[in-house]
Amino acid sequence: MRPILLAMASLLPVAMAGAQTAAPAGAQMKVTPAGSQPSARGPAQYFSGNVRIDPLFAAPAPSTAAGAAVTFEPGARSAWHTHPAGQVLIVTAGVGRVQQWGGAVQTIRPGDVVWTPPGVKHWHGAAPSTAMTHFAIQESAGGKNVEWLEKVSDAQYADEPK
Amino acid sequence: MRPILLAMASLLPVAMAGAQTAAPAGAQMKVTPAGSQPSARGPAQYFSGNVRIDPLFAAPAPSTAAGAAVTFEPGARSAWHTHPAGQVLIVTAGVGRVQQWGGAVQTIRPGDVVWTPPGVKHWHGAAPSTAMTHFAIQESAGGKNVEWLEKVSDAQYADEPK
Repeated sequence: MRPILLAMASLLPVAMAGAQTAAPAGAQMKVTPAGSQPSARGPAQYFSGNVRIDPLFAAPAPSTAAGAAVTFEPGARSAWHTHPAGQVLIVTAGVGRVQQWGGAVQTIRPGDVVWTPPGVKHWHGAAPSTAMTHFAIQESAGGKNVEWLEKVSDAQYADEPK
Repeated sequence: MRPILLAMASLLPVAMAGAQTAAPAGAQMKVTPAGSQPSARGPAQYFSGNVRIDPLFAAPAPSTAAGAAVTFEPGARSAWHTHPAGQVLIVTAGVGRVQQWGGAVQTIRPGDVVWTPPGVKHWHGAAPSTAMTHFAIQESAGGKNVEWLEKVSDAQYADEPK
């Protein structure tokens, strides 16, 4: 992460705008209403337990950013995986867990933000007895935004958070 | 927006991972706990009314993506502005409004997602009597992620949503 002051500077540049950026002719704002994008189930190949994926957005090229809300029922978690361009998680409900390969299990709660750098092997999911929802936002590198690896075993999942 | 099925494909590629993407040595997941990033006030130069900005993330280079939660008290709104690389809004609470220059005012509610293409002049804010919070995610182009323009006048804000 860049320091937050820099992030704020990025969000709110001090200079007032001079020339307006030209919009492509006919470019339109698009409101995608809640309820218009069907929920999907997290495939058993990549997730343990019940996981629901609610699509949010996929920005048009040249952006490769895409986002979804992901809800893990108690005990559910992703397989181990990496993100070629990294990933941001923003926890919105419940209590969850994340772990980097070789690191301690960490508890995550609403408002927590998780940055996983490109290529770092990790998993995320719910606490054993509490569901968790996060927004997940990732960009692509080489046309991919995730590389799936092996499942998180019950023994691995049973590790106590630090 | 790309079609949602494509978005889902992007989130969940069918192919199982072959080689794991190499992580830079020492790369670490980073959990930024809720409450560790101070709230900021939306500057009066760029906003009308009371606006609070809660920073969420600023992804490291080569990404230029940054995100914040923005809360508009009733009647508060941004100035007219454009985003050089576009912007995604995800409404998380309350009832708000968005308008593209020359278009109708639209009402937005929790779960709604708004895509504003690069260079499209627009504003967003709360409803006159109801607050609104959205996550805002934008990338940069040419080192900028926003170009600020004139304030939204009371007369402009008073337009009835379609």
